[in-house]
Amino acid sequence: MHHATAAQISAALADRYATKKFDPSRIISPENWEALEQSLHMAPSSFGLQPWRFIVVANPAIRATLRAAAWNQPQVTDASHLLVCTAKRQILPADVDKFITQTSTVRGVPAEKLAGYKGMISGFIASPGLDHTHWNTRQVYIALGFFMLAAANLGIDTCPLEGIDPAQFDATLNLGDSGYTTVVACAAGYRAADDHTQPSKAAKVRYIRSEIISHLI
Amino acid sequence: MHHATAAQISAALADRYATKKFDPSRIISPENWEALEQSLHMAPSSFGLQPWRFIVVANPAIRATLRAAAWNQPQVTDASHLLVCTAKRQILPADVDKFITQTSTVRGVPAEKLAGYKGMISGFIASPGLDHTHWNTRQVYIALGFFMLAAANLGIDTCPLEGIDPAQFDATLNLGDSGYTTVVACAAGYRAADDHTQPSKAAKVRYIRSEIISHLI
Repeated sequence: MHHATAAQISAALADRYATKKFDPSRIISPENWEALEQSLHMAPSSFGLQPWRFIVVANPAIRATLRAAAWNQPQVTDASHLLVCTAKRQILPADVDKFITQTSTVRGVPAEKLAGYKGMISGFIASPGLDHTHWNTRQVYIALGFFMLAAANLGIDTCPLEGIDPAQFDATLNLGDSGYTTVVACAAGYRAADDHTQPSKAAKVRYIRSEIISHLI
Repeated sequence: MHHATAAQISAALADRYATKKFDPSRIISPENWEALEQSLHMAPSSFGLQPWRFIVVANPAIRATLRAAAWNQPQVTDASHLLVCTAKRQILPADVDKFITQTSTVRGVPAEKLAGYKGMISGFIASPGLDHTHWNTRQVYIALGFFMLAAANLGIDTCPLEGIDPAQFDATLNLGDSGYTTVVACAAGYRAADDHTQPSKAAKVRYIRSEIISHLI
């Protein structure tokens, strides 16, 4: 495999920003979108449980409705693609069963041999005080990070959207009894040439690195 | 800038896994580690507040102590680098002031012109029911995602470590009155050749993609 270079990663990081104004005429290619879906599908999660569902909203009417539930942020309708990230509200014993069955199938290992692993997961999800929705939401944010960095690596712009009304998103997306709830969205596409928030026009605001990252030697 | 290709991203995603056994003799190069620190430093966060601190633990004695607080997982001591990710417990008005001052400095904009943005952030952090620690923790998980995918792109292996005792980590790292608390750790380095959990020896377990990602057309 041909890896990226440190210089490529640095350049992608420096050029990434929360895009405020997308160019509606520029569409992500199917090949690149395929890689972005893989970044979600292959993202890691605790125990590998994948406590998430992702919804790609292409329908213009639905995007318009979602925009109204997102402080009217134009990215919701103007970006090439709109991703809505949902988290499972609760990990149930049936979810663990399903995961163990999938592991058994994919790896060709008898489910009986996975009893120890199953017991560990089952014990964990029954932990008193474990807030499943928060736990699962954190996992979704890993996937969100994968999606945004994979996009940046491909020269694709994104804008994470936390300023949304999850209840209205859930209603619009018919998530009512699905067991999943909206936690964050992300617009993806290409910046408008005149977006004044892009790094070449507005320097990225970061604290000095030594304040953020320390070393215990 | 020379972007990555979709095929490169796909290959990195397919080869990434939660590394169980690191080769202690293989060390991440300074150049690559620099890019990984940038992936944390440049990661996006809500409003850009950067409600996090990252600690790179090189000291062997401290790593041994942390390993004992992490179910004795060998990755804690055996990987080239150990990253501990902490979240700010609370965003205070002083944090908003500091962020606005930094924005003013970096962008050369008078702080008065940022009053509207400051007011929006201040209003948000005062939202009733907003759990700051949870909110900040989610942001940390974006940075964790950036770190792990940047590593994968560079051919570097990682293992996210949620199975740790945050209170013991906080005590060992002297975070007591810092306002920050440990939320997750991540080992980084290179897989041992005989790690039987790597994708070439144990297929990745994922649900079929159509179950995880849906399209509203």
